Parts: sequence; C-alpha cells; structure tokens
Amino acid sequence: MTQRLIVIGGDAGGMAAASQARRSRGADDLEIVAFERGHFTSYSACGIPYWVGGLVADRDALIARDPATFRSKHQIDVRLGHEVTSIDLDRREIVARDLVGGGEVREPFDLLMYATGASPTSPGWARPDAGGVFGVQTLDEGSALLAWLDGSPRPERAVVVGGGYIGVEMAEAMIHRGLSVTLLDRSEQPMSAMDPDMAVLVREAMTQVGIDVRTGCEVTGLTTANGRVTGVQTVDGLIPADVVVLGLGVRPNTALAAAAGLPLGPTGGVRVDRRQRVIGVDGVWAAGDCVETFHRVTGQPAYLPLGTHANKQGRVAGIDIGGGYATFPGVVGTAVTRVCQLEVARTGLGERDATAAGYHFVSVRIESTSRAGYFPGAAPMTIKLLAERRSGRLLGAQIVGRSEAAKRIDPLAVALWNRMTVDEMTGLDLGYAPPYSPVWDPVLIAARKASDAVMAAT
Amino acid sequence: MTQRLIVIGGDAGGMAAASQARRSRGADDLEIVAFERGHFTSYSACGIPYWVGGLVADRDALIARDPATFRSKHQIDVRLGHEVTSIDLDRREIVARDLVGGGEVREPFDLLMYATGASPTSPGWARPDAGGVFGVQTLDEGSALLAWLDGSPRPERAVVVGGGYIGVEMAEAMIHRGLSVTLLDRSEQPMSAMDPDMAVLVREAMTQVGIDVRTGCEVTGLTTANGRVTGVQTVDGLIPADVVVLGLGVRPNTALAAAAGLPLGPTGGVRVDRRQRVIGVDGVWAAGDCVETFHRVTGQPAYLPLGTHANKQGRVAGIDIGGGYATFPGVVGTAVTRVCQLEVARTGLGERDATAAGYHFVSVRIESTSRAGYFPGAAPMTIKLLAERRSGRLLGAQIVGRSEAAKRIDPLAVALWNRMTVDEMTGLDLGYAPPYSPVWDPVLIAARKASDAVMAAT
Repeated sequence: MTQRLIVIGGDAGGMAAASQARRSRGADDLEIVAFERGHFTSYSACGIPYWVGGLVADRDALIARDPATFRSKHQIDVRLGHEVTSIDLDRREIVARDLVGGGEVREPFDLLMYATGASPTSPGWARPDAGGVFGVQTLDEGSALLAWLDGSPRPERAVVVGGGYIGVEMAEAMIHRGLSVTLLDRSEQPMSAMDPDMAVLVREAMTQVGIDVRTGCEVTGLTTANGRVTGVQTVDGLIPADVVVLGLGVRPNTALAAAAGLPLGPTGGVRVDRRQRVIGVDGVWAAGDCVETFHRVTGQPAYLPLGTHANKQGRVAGIDIGGGYATFPGVVGTAVTRVCQLEVARTGLGERDATAAGYHFVSVRIESTSRAGYFPGAAPMTIKLLAERRSGRLLGAQIVGRSEAAKRIDPLAVALWNRMTVDEMTGLDLGYAPPYSPVWDPVLIAARKASDAVMAAT
Repeated sequence: MTQRLIVIGGDAGGMAAASQARRSRGADDLEIVAFERGHFTSYSACGIPYWVGGLVADRDALIARDPATFRSKHQIDVRLGHEVTSIDLDRREIVARDLVGGGEVREPFDLLMYATGASPTSPGWARPDAGGVFGVQTLDEGSALLAWLDGSPRPERAVVVGGGYIGVEMAEAMIHRGLSVTLLDRSEQPMSAMDPDMAVLVREAMTQVGIDVRTGCEVTGLTTANGRVTGVQTVDGLIPADVVVLGLGVRPNTALAAAAGLPLGPTGGVRVDRRQRVIGVDGVWAAGDCVETFHRVTGQPAYLPLGTHANKQGRVAGIDIGGGYATFPGVVGTAVTRVCQLEVARTGLGERDATAAGYHFVSVRIESTSRAGYFPGAAPMTIKLLAERRSGRLLGAQIVGRSEAAKRIDPLAVALWNRMTVDEMTGLDLGYAPPYSPVWDPVLIAARKASDAVMAAT
C-alpha cells in the first residue's frame, strides 16, 4: 500500500530527505507532499549576502532546485505559500494555512519529515511595526531587504546589529552597495566564533573597508518615523539608520514541534537520533536548522545551523525513509567565511568553549604564508591551535588569511575528527609544492608549535 | 666533552638536522661541520622549474638559508665545494675532496648525518660528452641549464625526456621561455603518478599550451655535433633538439653509503629506523632524498624523494641527535603540482599501486566545482577515489582542477592517514561557504560515490 510522506519545510533538510527517499521508493510506493511557507525551495541561504552585495547578480542562481523540478523529476508535490500550523501525531495529519489563497488544508500522513529551519533572533526592541528592519535567513527576507534598499527614499545609512557570520557578511554587502555601515556588537570583538586575538584581525579588515565597528555596545531600542526606522538607540547614544539588519544569530523553528509534543533538546533544537529520527516518536524525522546535533569534541548536544549539515542530515533521513541505513555522525564545528578580503575559518573549540567544556589546554599562534615565500602570490596567514594539555589532542583551530587560507581548515577538521594529537600531526603528509605551500605547510608549523607547547606544559 | 657531528650534504635533510640539533646542544657541547659539494645550502629544488621558467626571477629567492646564516646564527661550519669521497666507520672519519682548491681533507666525527640527496636518473644513451643535456635536481644544475639557454647559439628546440613531475614542470618552463618543446614518455600517458584516466587531463592541458607530447616513445640515443646535442633518437625517429632535459626521476645517492657499509633497503635508499637512525650503525643518521621510508598504506618500504619529507626527517634526526625524542611516521604518498594552468594532486595508491599491493578495490570519479556553482570563479574539478572492497577503507585519491583544487588533497591525505572508510568520510565536517565550496564539497561528493560503489560491490 502506498505510504504518504509529508515534508514540512521546502529547503535543504526537507528536500534533501524527500529526493533521497524518492531514489529508493517510487511514486506508487511513497507519495511525497512538501509544504513551504515561502516562495522558494532548496536555495543557498549562505549566498544571500553575496546576492545583496551584488557579487551574485541573479537571485535565481541561488536556487539549487525549483518546485517545477521537484514535481517533474522527483514526483514531489510541492506546495508553496503554505504554512503548516499544527501537527496531530495521533490522527497522523497536519493542518496548513494557504498564505496566498487563504483558507486551510488538512492532510494525512504516514511519515513526517520536520524541516522548518530557523529564524533570525529578534530581540525585544525590534518592533514589528518598524519598516526597514530585516533578518536575512530566507530568500523572501533577502528580497524584502533588496526592495527596501532600492526603494524611495533610498536608504543611505545601515546599521547591522550583531557581528556573527551573517552580520559581518551583510555589513560588507551594504558597503558594496554604497551605504555607510555601522556594525554593533555587545562583545569585545565581532565574529565571536573566533577567539578575540583572531577576531581582531577581522575587525581591522572591516575597518579598512570602511565599516564603523562598535563593540561592547548594547542596543536598547529603535527610533521610527512614519513607520520607518530612523535610528538605533544604544547605551552609547543614538545611531541614525535608514535600514537595520539583524545579525544576532538564529533560533530553531520549533514552536510547531513543541505544540505537537516532539521532544526538544537542551540547545532548543528538535531531538533526533543518529538516523535523524525524532526521539521517541515513530515515523517522524527531522533535519537542518531546526534540529539539535552532536558535537564530536565536547560529546555534548550542539546547535549548529548550517546548510552543509542540513543537506547531510536530510540525506541520512531520506536514506532511512527509503529503507536504507545511514547515520549522521555529528559535527566538529567547522565554519568558513570570506569577509572584507579576508578568509576566516574555524573548527572545534575556541578558548571559551574549551574552558566551558572543562578542558585544560594550551594555545599557540603562528604566522606563515599560503605559498613558498618566493612564489608570486604568497599571502600571509595566521593559524591558532588549541590542544589538550597532557594528551596533546587537538581541540580546535582558527585561521585568518588573505588567500588560500580558509580551506586549510579541512585537514585540521579531519585531524580533529580522528582525535589526532598535535604531535602526530607534525608528521602529516600534506601536499607540498611552491605554488601551494611553504615546504612546511602553515598547518604543520602550527602543529609543531602546539606540540612544543604541550611538551613544555607537561 | 665536546662531540663532533659531521653532516654530509648541505640541503634540506642535512641542514634541518644540523640546525635542529643546535637548538638543544650548544657549540661547546656539539661541534657541527657540514660538507656540501655544490655552491648552495638549503634551497628549494622544487622551485627550480619556476625559476627556469621565469616566474621566480631571482635564484637566491630559492635559498632558505645561506652558509653565512648557518655559520653565524647556528654556529655550523659549512664547507661548500667539498665532496665527501669516503666514510670510515671504524676510524670515525671522512675524507672530502676540495672541488675548488684541490686536495683532500680528512675529518674525524663522533656523530654522522648522511644526507647526500638524489641525482637525476641518467640512462645509458645520455653520453656525458654531449653538451646541452641536463638534469635539474640541484641549483647548480639549474644554473648550468639557464646558462645554456642564454648561450650562443641560442637553443630553440627543447626535448624533455620523461613525463614525471619534474619533466612536466620543465616542459612548461621551456614554453614560458619561448622554446618549442617536445615531451617524450615511454608510458601510455605522462604524469604516471596519476592513473591514465586522470593523467589524460594533464596531457590535454600540456597540448593546449603548445607542448608536443609523444607517449609510448622509447629513446634510443642522442645525436651531437661539435660536442653539442643536436637531437634525440627514438624508436619513432629523430627529434631535433638544442637542449635536452632529463625528467626520468631521481635515484638516491648511496654509493658513498654502500662503500662504507651502510645498509640499503629494497627500494635502494639508506635504511633507517623511525628516528632516522641508520639501521645497525651507532651514531649515524640519514634523511632526505637518499633514504628509504615507509608507506603507511601498503605497509611497505617506499622511496619518495620530496623536500617536505626531507625537512621532516631532518628535524626528527636533529631532535634525536639533540637528545630528544621524535619519530618520522612514514608517508602516504601525497604530491601536488601546478602545470599548464592545472592543479594536480594525488595521495595514497593509484590503480596500479593498489593492484600491486594486493588490494581489491573500487574506483570512482566525479566532476564538481571549486566554489558554489553560482559564485564567481567557480572552476571545474575532477576527483578520483580508490577504496578497498569490503572494508570500504580509502586507498587513494587524485585531483585535477583549474583552481582551488590541489590542496583539497590534504583532507583526503589526513583521512587516509587515519584509515577512514569512504562511508565515514561522507559525514566529514569540511568547511562550507559559497566562495570556497558547493554545499557538498567535491571531496564529500566523491566519498558518497565511493561509498555507493563499495556498497554495490559487496
């Protein structure tokens, strides 16, 4: 008998699961209906800052697969502009509101894929009546922001609140569009995914392109006139603004899950097992920015919303729905970005995380170059490593460089994954040739210094 | 009492050992004398093709540390132009010939560092009386080649014999200098470190820049006139040449070692233990292109002359000489190069190696891009993986791409080092952001396809 899978959320996690399930179960075996409240499916949210900044000209370029493709190629019934408002696990049905046509639909399911994503954290002061205040987590939000930027009167002064990845990337995008930009962050440095001694390099680069970076700066409110934002009130005074972008991180969209009785973990995401099955609930899977995952270094639950995890988790769920077997093995916290001519990367634990996790550790920092020093294009690079005292095990790595720096986090992420010690890492057989590396790759130089520090500390 | 260390060979392996030993033993504890038959110390032999090709303008840029620096900063007595001609292990002394001033010196040692490097393989037909035939393993050889290229009559037609790394790099360098270039290789494809289906991509790129690549072509002799080379005789006929570069690989310089009774391994290199101590001989270490090392994938002895190994081995030897403890853990066969606009990389075993080692394996090849497809500068990339049947363990990887491709071998090399399966690799937490990677990094796409192939084969 044909089963029916309902997918809530038409982005990476949900649609990866749906199309993966389709690979092993045909339409006569598994009917798939996907509800998406927005106007788009399977797009690159990570690409939004580059689209807003003008580096990527075409919004549609960010869309990996559109609804028509899902319908024709994968026989998935995609319903855009439909927001699922409740899940009834006992009756095995959902209710969805048609945001365009109006009215409600009620649809039964045998299997349920929960992939509602995340929403930008919106603080109390971000009044919903203030035009010109934007999160940028979805293509719809990106479209709204771009319409505002192109509107009349044309905004000239942007304030970005929050200096995480999206905040920093959006600040740069606004500079590219010719606005004057102020970035506000409560912490000592923006880019708090990096330790302050590394983040300061990013701050310098931001300042150099003209971003006014203000740290230790708490926002207390907004000023508006005629329904439009006019400024951001802070403990240090009022900053005029024609547009405000929220870069305070995101929260998992779990209201629907919680109301239905799906379990949430300590980080706030939906709790799933290694096969992305919602814990304790039969026939329900979850993936992407709405779920809690597992950090392989701390051994603790973690919330790390990122498109690459959503895709991997969706694939795992889809294989399971399809009757196969796969597991999502957790994350080590790898993240990379390009901002203001800098390549920035991290994996594992920073000093604050490592301390919170109870580790005793050493940390070292080295300067090297991307290529042999004599080779044209050799660019400076800073690498910081954290290693556990006593064991010498790598705990985390951070990189800031001008070019060919960010992806050097990958061998470090694989070393971390495999619980290598920094001493063993000094011997790693990494690629060497003058166009790509000094004879000692910066990663190896960092491992040597960390190994020396572990020795000295024990 | 002060001990005396004699270093034979002033390049990477020897001088890394000497300067590392100096870090823990001062001049009153350890006297260090280094003999080098050439005119230079510690230079980047891997940079020679870029210098010959004009990309690196200054020969001295290739020199990491000159003799004056070793003398003043490290208190190492460096004697250039001295070729050690014999080692007497019983009397603990060496004899060196002064190639410049003439005569011989006889010097005692307590400890000996053997780091004589390698020499280009020179076939029987490469008559020593033919001017214009060059290997390019040392700066002296590079200087001689450049002098010939700039000489009169000015050479116009170059033939490179052998399509390994150095051959391919030198062929491109000659093109950059405006010569017409023919590259001859006995095999089906040049670049035999890659499987033929990957090497063909390199061949196409070479052809595109104007190199006449002839494969399956055996060289039988040289023609000369007035002591100058005039052509290369092959089974397919005579190829006119004003300059011939040998790219047939290198052989370890072990004649001196063998005469002294140092043990050689099955690959022809000096046999050393994990601390780079020559097996069975007290107080003698060896490192670099003259030693045999250990392949972590096959578990067999291997000869893989490469500057990065020489530096690591030299450091290990130097730590041991200095009274510390370190080991060289072997290699996985990683190598990268840039040739004719292509980035080329490998690690582990190719199909021929894997078969020879007795493995049953699957191999897969995928096409992807360096960045998100919509991001400016995204370039195509081909990755091939070999995995053991049944276990699914990664055995080897090869990459060819236009940009941001070569160093993607590093996470694969670390995965190989840690004996990961391709299935586990599908979950790896590699850096993702649109400027650096599609949402599935090419490495992950390759791992997924390899994992599917392992499943299908078992």
